[in-house]
Amino acid sequence: MALSPPGLDAFLDKFEETLEALVQSEVLFIRLIHQDLVTAGGKRIRPRLVFLASRALGGAPFEMELALAVELLHSATLLHDDLIDDAETRRGKEAAFRKYGNAVSVLSGDFLLSRLLHVIAKTGRMELVERFAQVAKTLSEGEVLQFQVAALEDYSLENYERIITAKTAVLMELSTEGPALLKGVDGEVREALARFGLFYGQAFQMRDDYLDLMGTPEALGKPVGGDVREGKATLITLLLMERFPEVREVLRRKGRREGDLDRLRMLAWESGVAEEVERRIRERALLAAAALKPLPPSPYKEALEALALKEAERLS
Amino acid sequence: MALSPPGLDAFLDKFEETLEALVQSEVLFIRLIHQDLVTAGGKRIRPRLVFLASRALGGAPFEMELALAVELLHSATLLHDDLIDDAETRRGKEAAFRKYGNAVSVLSGDFLLSRLLHVIAKTGRMELVERFAQVAKTLSEGEVLQFQVAALEDYSLENYERIITAKTAVLMELSTEGPALLKGVDGEVREALARFGLFYGQAFQMRDDYLDLMGTPEALGKPVGGDVREGKATLITLLLMERFPEVREVLRRKGRREGDLDRLRMLAWESGVAEEVERRIRERALLAAAALKPLPPSPYKEALEALALKEAERLS
Repeated sequence: MALSPPGLDAFLDKFEETLEALVQSEVLFIRLIHQDLVTAGGKRIRPRLVFLASRALGGAPFEMELALAVELLHSATLLHDDLIDDAETRRGKEAAFRKYGNAVSVLSGDFLLSRLLHVIAKTGRMELVERFAQVAKTLSEGEVLQFQVAALEDYSLENYERIITAKTAVLMELSTEGPALLKGVDGEVREALARFGLFYGQAFQMRDDYLDLMGTPEALGKPVGGDVREGKATLITLLLMERFPEVREVLRRKGRREGDLDRLRMLAWESGVAEEVERRIRERALLAAAALKPLPPSPYKEALEALALKEAERLS
Repeated sequence: MALSPPGLDAFLDKFEETLEALVQSEVLFIRLIHQDLVTAGGKRIRPRLVFLASRALGGAPFEMELALAVELLHSATLLHDDLIDDAETRRGKEAAFRKYGNAVSVLSGDFLLSRLLHVIAKTGRMELVERFAQVAKTLSEGEVLQFQVAALEDYSLENYERIITAKTAVLMELSTEGPALLKGVDGEVREALARFGLFYGQAFQMRDDYLDLMGTPEALGKPVGGDVREGKATLITLLLMERFPEVREVLRRKGRREGDLDRLRMLAWESGVAEEVERRIRERALLAAAALKPLPPSPYKEALEALALKEAERLS
């Protein structure tokens, strides 16, 4: 099966083991947070990207360190995000901060960032440190921008593209470009992997945002409409806003009036906006798959393509 | 004057300029947070330590990058700390999170950490990256431990020493040891600078904690008793607890009953505990100064000694 090419399962098993050892701490509250969130699983999409990109190149040195580093950055962001999102559940579990307070979540996230620094130092590659510096900068700017856009109601498709690129796509880009960097592969192959990660990340976030409103709570493992309740506009609400001025009002009152969310969903279905968003996601996923052209054929390349195409139809 | 040896003022001016450029962002809310907190001044103790240690060695490469990096780590911790401390003011200004929400503070702190990564990458020294990884790990563990000790009322002098070392002293240690690392100086001189930073950092935090209860709001620029109101035991309350069981109760109720703080202060003065704490701080400051023995005489060494001795009497 294209989504599970040779060696992937073993790599992911080894990943879990190494991650667990890496985030050990003598401090009890840090261990509790990590049991709750970091080592509790999750889809491990970023480590998967690292593995596939590495093997599509015939294997890159330090692929495990890179996989750990990208996942640590992602996990730290989730911990720092719990404050923002106010999502009642994340990965189907009670959000960590409700149990131990915001402070412990934030500081446990900082602990993860320190471990990230440790694993990238192991590679001995300063170029990788610098790339993580850029990505971490863009990522934090993207998160703040999202907050700012909601606070100032500065809604636009341009801002939406900036946000999904900064908060999601650049880390996916590093996940797939990183193996080329570590292997010393330059030129169109490295560029192809970078472009794949960027487009894939955008498609991924567009799909997540779409499901946040249009999915089912059962499939998502959390209530729908989280973005609306935080006043965050996503592609679907932005396109709806262009046609129905009332949507801006719904966002302003954070979907608090009864029937607000159902109304948005109905408008999206009936106006064809839902279909339009699906079309744009599919388009982005196809760009990702097409970007891989310069790579030689391999089951790993196929698995990357399959991952991208999955975004065109994913329901959870 | 020993506290301002040749070149220090020019270095600190250049530092402010470089810091301001380094934390620029296209995102408005990040700029606002930084104007408020990061570039608003502060004592710049850590950059000062870097400069003095570097010049005591005759000048180390990348002293500015190191000064920026240690201050960025410190500033990020302050931003992530605003959540915990609930201090109404910090550096005499309204805490950033009150204006823009906890989320923006945390994410702006993350932005600073990304800039830290960028400046240490510039040095090209992976050993420095690894040292920052260790310090950041210890720092976050120290902060969480402090929270945990308060939550579990796990008060002890041993935990107090662990906390002040982890949350303050190890970063001071890196500030003074770092120049030796960058210059490739090993052996007893590097060890001397490291020991100085560690003892100085402990004395510094002990003094801060002492003033938090025993100082005046005018000199501190914030209300006294912040630690008690967060249920945090410091050296003075720990020693009081040994003699007066009621102090544990005061800490448990977070000094909320009228007269609680005045009562603690009175007990400290009358029992001689205040004097005992002063004695222990002085002792630690003298250990710091004595650690510098292996260094050749210079105005920079003198300035470091003077900094340490100032902790024996500082009132603000």
